[in-house]
Amino acid sequence: MTTQQLHEQILQKKSFLCVGLDPDLDKIPPHLLETEDPVFEFNKAIIDATHDLTVAYKPNTAFFEAYGIKGWISLQKTISYINEKFPDVFTIADAKRGDIGNTSSMYAKAFFEDLQFDSVTVAPYMGKDSVEPFLAFENKHTIILALTSNEGAFDFQTLTINGGQGRAEQSEAKELYKQVLETSKTWKNSENLMYVVGATKAEYFTEIRKIVPDSFLLVPGIGAQGGSLSEVCKYGMNDKVGLLVNSARAIIYASNGTDFAEKAREEALKVQQEMESILSSKA
Amino acid sequence: MTTQQLHEQILQKKSFLCVGLDPDLDKIPPHLLETEDPVFEFNKAIIDATHDLTVAYKPNTAFFEAYGIKGWISLQKTISYINEKFPDVFTIADAKRGDIGNTSSMYAKAFFEDLQFDSVTVAPYMGKDSVEPFLAFENKHTIILALTSNEGAFDFQTLTINGGQGRAEQSEAKELYKQVLETSKTWKNSENLMYVVGATKAEYFTEIRKIVPDSFLLVPGIGAQGGSLSEVCKYGMNDKVGLLVNSARAIIYASNGTDFAEKAREEALKVQQEMESILSSKA
Repeated sequence: MTTQQLHEQILQKKSFLCVGLDPDLDKIPPHLLETEDPVFEFNKAIIDATHDLTVAYKPNTAFFEAYGIKGWISLQKTISYINEKFPDVFTIADAKRGDIGNTSSMYAKAFFEDLQFDSVTVAPYMGKDSVEPFLAFENKHTIILALTSNEGAFDFQTLTINGGQGRAEQSEAKELYKQVLETSKTWKNSENLMYVVGATKAEYFTEIRKIVPDSFLLVPGIGAQGGSLSEVCKYGMNDKVGLLVNSARAIIYASNGTDFAEKAREEALKVQQEMESILSSKA
Repeated sequence: MTTQQLHEQILQKKSFLCVGLDPDLDKIPPHLLETEDPVFEFNKAIIDATHDLTVAYKPNTAFFEAYGIKGWISLQKTISYINEKFPDVFTIADAKRGDIGNTSSMYAKAFFEDLQFDSVTVAPYMGKDSVEPFLAFENKHTIILALTSNEGAFDFQTLTINGGQGRAEQSEAKELYKQVLETSKTWKNSENLMYVVGATKAEYFTEIRKIVPDSFLLVPGIGAQGGSLSEVCKYGMNDKVGLLVNSARAIIYASNGTDFAEKAREEALKVQQEMESILSSKA
């Protein structure tokens, strides 16, 4: 999928919601546990109930890998279901991968070719040759961690870097996540980059937009993690919207009764309506 | 496995070799492609041929995920085979994972409980709460990326950080990888930490040993990537050896004929003999 197609979908659905699929057998409705593949049945019901309100789904690979081979089968069934039934929806493998070049090539094959995701999240610590193999895939997108939504984001991402032995240009002191943004722009096929920026730090969006004005930002931290949608939009939105705001737990675990899909739709609808209102006020 | 048991195995086998299992269908011997599970058959033959010369195996998860469900089955069969047949060997899931707390918990379950690895590699970018869920497992080990062996290591890992808004103590300017080492030592259950340090940068080991004198270091970059074993040992070895030196391609792809396992053993034996000589000169 191209970013142009993604933008068109946003305008059509009046939504830039991404629903995170984090299927936890300890949290999903007990009646599903009797089915042959509870994880897939759960995802399928959530997808069927929300696909017109959301422009993206983001399966979190950890929640599949934890169930071994069965989990990987559930992941494959989930992505195939989305791709066959709702091919207009953008798909994100939230996998946080990244390794030396020949290994990153194998991860790219896994997510872009075997599973047919539109995008994958990647950690930047290992630098250019760990990310470029992902960028080589046309109309596939690589979403680099810049500033994450968790507490630990302040351990390293916001440290100030200041000259020294790094290869990157460093004309002035800046925080690590800003250097990640700047350096990544110099990589081959960088037009295929998007960035993870946590919603819990809305005031940072102004600075981030100075560096990557046109890129899509995947924004976790709305909902269970406490971020404010209106704040994020105020500082983070660009003229192509440029945001995919993720919500997982607040939507998919809105109920753990037999009405879970209906309740998930209600929660997704609330977010979509807030997004519609923001989009129309910006138009 | 405890680090004490790992040390005992090193003394017994006179080796601190780790064999990286990166099974690539384009590189493994063609005659194996006719078997039902070529990836597992390849790994099994390499393991059978080298287990007395190596103290650790390191399957690289990318090379399994690239083959989808079949690949995940091959991974499970490989780790089960090692655990059943050679339970004294240390196992490393080279997975480079790391995410917010509840997600890292799921990854820890995947690798420590479902697959029963002794250890997993983790990227540090997301900080404390992305790593501590792994550290909570007793007698399991979390191997954090500090200074990797690839070119991109110089993009961010060696940038000098200098005061600023990070939470970590910063009494003096230092490179990011050193801050990762220092900060990680303050995390809960940090005694379960090991670190990835690339062999291509042997001169850095002196500095690293000042920060983590007692930790095991997993050292990639020997062999195909060009690092020198004697240099690594000169600067990186501690009184409990404290090194696991990985070699993958140079051993597992020593031949792609029907003699591949025999040739792999020959290459592993060369490295083991060099290690034995280094160990006896240090004793």
